[in-house]
Amino acid sequence: MKDQTIHCKAAVAWEAGQPLSIETVEVMPPQKGEVRIKLVATGVCHTDAFTLSGEDPEGIFPAILGHEGGGIVESVGEGVTSVQVGDHVIPLYTPECGECKFCKSGKTNLCQKIRETQGKGLMPDGTTRFSIDGQPIYHYMGTSTFSEYTVLPEIALAKVNPQAPLKEVCLLGCGVTTGMGAVMNTAKVEPGATVAIFGLGGIGLSAVIGATMAGAERIIGIDINESKFDLARKLGATECINPKQYDKPIQEVIVELTDGGVDYSFECIGNVNVMRAALECCHKGWGESVIIGVAGAGQEICTRPFQLVTGRVWRGTAFGGVKGRSELPDYVERYLAGEFKLDDFITYTMPLEEINQAFELMHEGKSIRSVIHYDS
Amino acid sequence: MKDQTIHCKAAVAWEAGQPLSIETVEVMPPQKGEVRIKLVATGVCHTDAFTLSGEDPEGIFPAILGHEGGGIVESVGEGVTSVQVGDHVIPLYTPECGECKFCKSGKTNLCQKIRETQGKGLMPDGTTRFSIDGQPIYHYMGTSTFSEYTVLPEIALAKVNPQAPLKEVCLLGCGVTTGMGAVMNTAKVEPGATVAIFGLGGIGLSAVIGATMAGAERIIGIDINESKFDLARKLGATECINPKQYDKPIQEVIVELTDGGVDYSFECIGNVNVMRAALECCHKGWGESVIIGVAGAGQEICTRPFQLVTGRVWRGTAFGGVKGRSELPDYVERYLAGEFKLDDFITYTMPLEEINQAFELMHEGKSIRSVIHYDS
Repeated sequence: MKDQTIHCKAAVAWEAGQPLSIETVEVMPPQKGEVRIKLVATGVCHTDAFTLSGEDPEGIFPAILGHEGGGIVESVGEGVTSVQVGDHVIPLYTPECGECKFCKSGKTNLCQKIRETQGKGLMPDGTTRFSIDGQPIYHYMGTSTFSEYTVLPEIALAKVNPQAPLKEVCLLGCGVTTGMGAVMNTAKVEPGATVAIFGLGGIGLSAVIGATMAGAERIIGIDINESKFDLARKLGATECINPKQYDKPIQEVIVELTDGGVDYSFECIGNVNVMRAALECCHKGWGESVIIGVAGAGQEICTRPFQLVTGRVWRGTAFGGVKGRSELPDYVERYLAGEFKLDDFITYTMPLEEINQAFELMHEGKSIRSVIHYDS
Repeated sequence: MKDQTIHCKAAVAWEAGQPLSIETVEVMPPQKGEVRIKLVATGVCHTDAFTLSGEDPEGIFPAILGHEGGGIVESVGEGVTSVQVGDHVIPLYTPECGECKFCKSGKTNLCQKIRETQGKGLMPDGTTRFSIDGQPIYHYMGTSTFSEYTVLPEIALAKVNPQAPLKEVCLLGCGVTTGMGAVMNTAKVEPGATVAIFGLGGIGLSAVIGATMAGAERIIGIDINESKFDLARKLGATECINPKQYDKPIQEVIVELTDGGVDYSFECIGNVNVMRAALECCHKGWGESVIIGVAGAGQEICTRPFQLVTGRVWRGTAFGGVKGRSELPDYVERYLAGEFKLDDFITYTMPLEEINQAFELMHEGKSIRSVIHYDS
């Protein structure tokens, strides 16, 4: 099928603020350096909802959203050597070219090779592979997993162990890796550490798992929705607290609870006030706070510089600092080895036709993750 | 003289906003765990001026200011074992007890053993060693080096090589160590790095020296006072720029100059807007900014969290992250070995009687450091 256009189902976001629409789209064959994959499953993430809402200043429409997928290589374009037809792959919204200044630095996972076109909803050659009756449909985050078939640059695919169930490990394409990686990769939490995790959604719960795997001794989960506490505890949180139950700022509560503050904190919401609390609940002298959540456009974080001068560190992370092609396959291996589970995250599964329900469940706070199954 | 009160000259700050007054003060003998030293020299630092101005919310009067000194042990109190009469010492406003949670952490130099009393202008037992006609005079930063004799806790003294001239290495008691340590100890700048240093006063110039010693390839000095550029270049700055010469924010200028930003930046002023610029001129993916300057009370730093999520790190440092008793003596050794010089920093020397002139020279921007010589 390498040279043929595929007609398949996809959920199209025609404009901001509207439900997705199931359409038959044309998916062009992969061009030079590109790969076409058949999706097996995809998670529905808050970032998809953020862009669909219209609040994302970089949102482009019409587009096919989705960035947390798992699939199988259907065909490859000219010059593709690292994957072949039938390989199991996880699409990467943060690619890894291995050649750019960023990849070569050894200090970051933020490959910039195709960033400009990706940000415009285009393949690296400046065009799209999706269309409906000749109208181009834009890509999203370089992945567009809300389609039965999608096309990606070769550098945006992690080849993973085919024994891993793609309906579960698709979650490693975004949320779970982001949370676990932030703890193990960005913060490098050490055994015995005290950790605070703000926000117990998919990212926060993944951070709880990461902290457990890292051997943290005390893992404090913080959320205003106490219905999330049971699962957080099951995954390893040693205590859970609700800021609404206290008369004083949550950072003061945590500093008192921990005899001076935590060694590491993680903001998994995207709320700039919580980001400040997360920094300020860190221990003087060495506490490090990692921002994972994405704040609204133009919002700012603030604190008194004294917080930093007295030894706290403020950092952030994207995709958990994980280099997709070289490091993500190992996350899949660790999953297969039983080091962590993913089924707790999957609160609902549904076919693509019901994807709008996944967004509703998310907005109602009823789901951690809904996963779309393409063969159902 | 161990049991005798000494009558000597000191510069007393009777109240905020007034010149210092040369007085004869009574200096009690050192108590248990304390040491009395005869000062040989002391630098006059911006922090002294900040407190004297009245803007320091923790300023207490009447007090004997000064915290950048060098002296010789005159007598020791009960139980003191680590120094003896005649030892050459540098007073430490950040002590090192070796026993508190902070010292034991191995992660910070911010020993908290005597912080509470030190912040109140008192010795650890809650009293002062200075008085005039029975009126207690408060200590300052636990050091009070604007006096011919002062008393300090044993844990607040670094014993240094007696071959080092105290009239120069007194500067290692604050500014020079702060700047050099921020680069070498807090940021751990590596050979080949690109560095931006905001503010070319004593701290900033020391950071320039530190960056040179660390092998930084490109060292960009930034100041609105171009008269400081010559010395900065002499000490190792590879280029100097004046933000007033540009129409756009200095962070944008530096990002363009450096093909994406610097690897490390240092704020050596205490201006929260400059702190933001220093962070935002860092390279995406790995740039780290270190706040050294002390901002005014209540002022806040702000930025968009995107700056951190895309890999920049915001940290701070006090006394360059240097542990005074265990690490400062090595700075003195490196000075003696010729790895760096201090004479460039000493723009004026004068006797204690002329100390108010040192403050005037500082306010006029004419001095890097004025050093008081006690025997002149």
